[in-house]
Amino acid sequence: MTPDIPKSALQLRTLVTSTGTLELSLHEVPVPAPAANQVLVRIEASPINPSDLGLLLAGADVSAAVVTGSAERPVVTIPLPEGALRRLSARVDKSLPVGNEGAGTVVAVGSSAAGNGLLGRTVAAAGGSMYAQYRTIDASSCLLLPEGTPARDGASAFVNPLTALGMVATMHQEGHRGLVNTAAASNLGQMLVKLCLEDQVPLVNIVRKPEQEELLRKLGALHVCNSTSPSFMPELIEALTETSATLAFDATGGGRLVSQILTCMEASLSASANEYSRYGSTTHKQVYIYGGLDTGPTVLTRNFGFAWGLGGWLLTPFLQSIGREAVAELQARVAGGLTATFASTYTKEVSLAGALQPGALATYAEQATGEKYLIAPSLK
Amino acid sequence: MTPDIPKSALQLRTLVTSTGTLELSLHEVPVPAPAANQVLVRIEASPINPSDLGLLLAGADVSAAVVTGSAERPVVTIPLPEGALRRLSARVDKSLPVGNEGAGTVVAVGSSAAGNGLLGRTVAAAGGSMYAQYRTIDASSCLLLPEGTPARDGASAFVNPLTALGMVATMHQEGHRGLVNTAAASNLGQMLVKLCLEDQVPLVNIVRKPEQEELLRKLGALHVCNSTSPSFMPELIEALTETSATLAFDATGGGRLVSQILTCMEASLSASANEYSRYGSTTHKQVYIYGGLDTGPTVLTRNFGFAWGLGGWLLTPFLQSIGREAVAELQARVAGGLTATFASTYTKEVSLAGALQPGALATYAEQATGEKYLIAPSLK
Repeated sequence: MTPDIPKSALQLRTLVTSTGTLELSLHEVPVPAPAANQVLVRIEASPINPSDLGLLLAGADVSAAVVTGSAERPVVTIPLPEGALRRLSARVDKSLPVGNEGAGTVVAVGSSAAGNGLLGRTVAAAGGSMYAQYRTIDASSCLLLPEGTPARDGASAFVNPLTALGMVATMHQEGHRGLVNTAAASNLGQMLVKLCLEDQVPLVNIVRKPEQEELLRKLGALHVCNSTSPSFMPELIEALTETSATLAFDATGGGRLVSQILTCMEASLSASANEYSRYGSTTHKQVYIYGGLDTGPTVLTRNFGFAWGLGGWLLTPFLQSIGREAVAELQARVAGGLTATFASTYTKEVSLAGALQPGALATYAEQATGEKYLIAPSLK
Repeated sequence: MTPDIPKSALQLRTLVTSTGTLELSLHEVPVPAPAANQVLVRIEASPINPSDLGLLLAGADVSAAVVTGSAERPVVTIPLPEGALRRLSARVDKSLPVGNEGAGTVVAVGSSAAGNGLLGRTVAAAGGSMYAQYRTIDASSCLLLPEGTPARDGASAFVNPLTALGMVATMHQEGHRGLVNTAAASNLGQMLVKLCLEDQVPLVNIVRKPEQEELLRKLGALHVCNSTSPSFMPELIEALTETSATLAFDATGGGRLVSQILTCMEASLSASANEYSRYGSTTHKQVYIYGGLDTGPTVLTRNFGFAWGLGGWLLTPFLQSIGREAVAELQARVAGGLTATFASTYTKEVSLAGALQPGALATYAEQATGEKYLIAPSLK
């Protein structure tokens, strides 16, 4: 250990108590020495992704947040809704670290050869506990960033880029010829627009606001449908016919959007069918739910035949399914495009303590388009 | 052609008119000579399966049926609900034959060798147009029944037996260790109970009435849950834990049953998990909808993590997916068990004209447990 590494440092923790309260706070935890195959990373940038919010906020209503403690060590408490403890039973009274991904400088390495080339370099990594000042990580899990890349540029090198690449890979694997994405003006959605243009994958983007339509068209998106438009269904059918898209990724989950997408896919396929089939088109239509912006129930009208599937989609099992080598190839592609195709933009950079301020909490919990927070744990 | 084969014979037809009426009637159609690779079958028994009703009734409300014509040549007309024509556009003004499967005697054969061994024998077949007195069929598609088997015993040798076998095969293919079936007291459900006992496949049966519970327990079913019971959910969780069933086949489609099954599977899996995962269990839970007894929307509460799938399941694509040889193996198994594991029972045998009488229509359209009709086209 070099002398400028402290013995202990801050880590953000989330705790659901058995009395029904969510508690967010900063803990002073020991900075461990890296094991043989590990490196110690000083985390300098870690994004707040929608996929972090489930663990961080446990479904609590942030408008009821109360902040106590000092400015440097705030403690947020939020009462949990009735019945929430049953759903959360496995995490009750366990103080849990948060943060799916981040980037920073390797300040110490273990004894294995793998780590040595990384000392002093900026790396990106995923795997949780990134809302912290320091973290040890397997050297083999680190994505070495090109010399001179600021940590900020590598902070979001895993979740969104690999999800976008995973969507396109899933499309190829499952034999589809085009994609649909919802909540398509998100950071991930914008990345998918750029990636699909680069890979010549036909993409239908579904958004809810005119300014989101405009944003995506400016990026070069060819097919953008607004689900609040009275002509949404015929417009979606037309876009599906033009793209032959039979695979959709849905970030909203609840409501009727999934059903509408399947209905429009079926309508597009039936329009080109020659013969009546009481079971509908034989072409398989698939929707994967990968988020839950709408936590209400998913309502399916089932007027889309029998050749359809719906399911959950998560990045981690997808990466496990394709194997280490394929993942390494995807990561290499991301590393080469961090300031272009896979660039993320942030509206705000906050310290660990800053992430626990009421205004910040309220903003990132809302998951509004164009509002993306970056935690810089070394900021005071 | 031998002299006892008529030049023309009766065929039941279903017609959706452009004026919004469903018309069911008997047509006198030419009896064709079999082509080289075909045989001509005198159809003697053909069941009315739930899977026939979509084509036959086009969603019409049979309580509004009006029957005109003679007793031998009834004509049923039923007004279709507002808006039905859009959904049915591909079949408007096309008179369509009906009847997925049936059995009868081979009365003439084509010139190819394959057909010759079949002359005079009783065969079962599937492929539509079975509600008719005669039908030509590819010799290779015929299931030759054991010498002396009455046509009645072979009438349902395809749809239900192959569906039950297909469910078990899908379970093995997709790596599940147990099955759930809904509307489990149906003819198919009873067959599945017997098959699963024979193959030692753990099976959870979901029914809605005490007498259905009793019926299945008498057949030897170990796990029967009544979805109308106040303790349905805990009972289902217990049955799922005992069977490790993570694959369900659902005949109802609409309502919350699919969601309840996924929720209970997740609860059963989480109970044995050691660690909290914000994304739920990593074990994949799957439900296939194969019927539509409840035509209302499917409502999913999505409190079952991300490792789940839902989709349509149909027999024909399943059979296509496993290939000819595998299908032949399944059919051989069915042929050997037609009076045991794969036996069907019928409450009523009617002529083609009898199938168009109001009382019969009302009964088989209701798809009540234990009410199964057999059409015997040679009956007057």
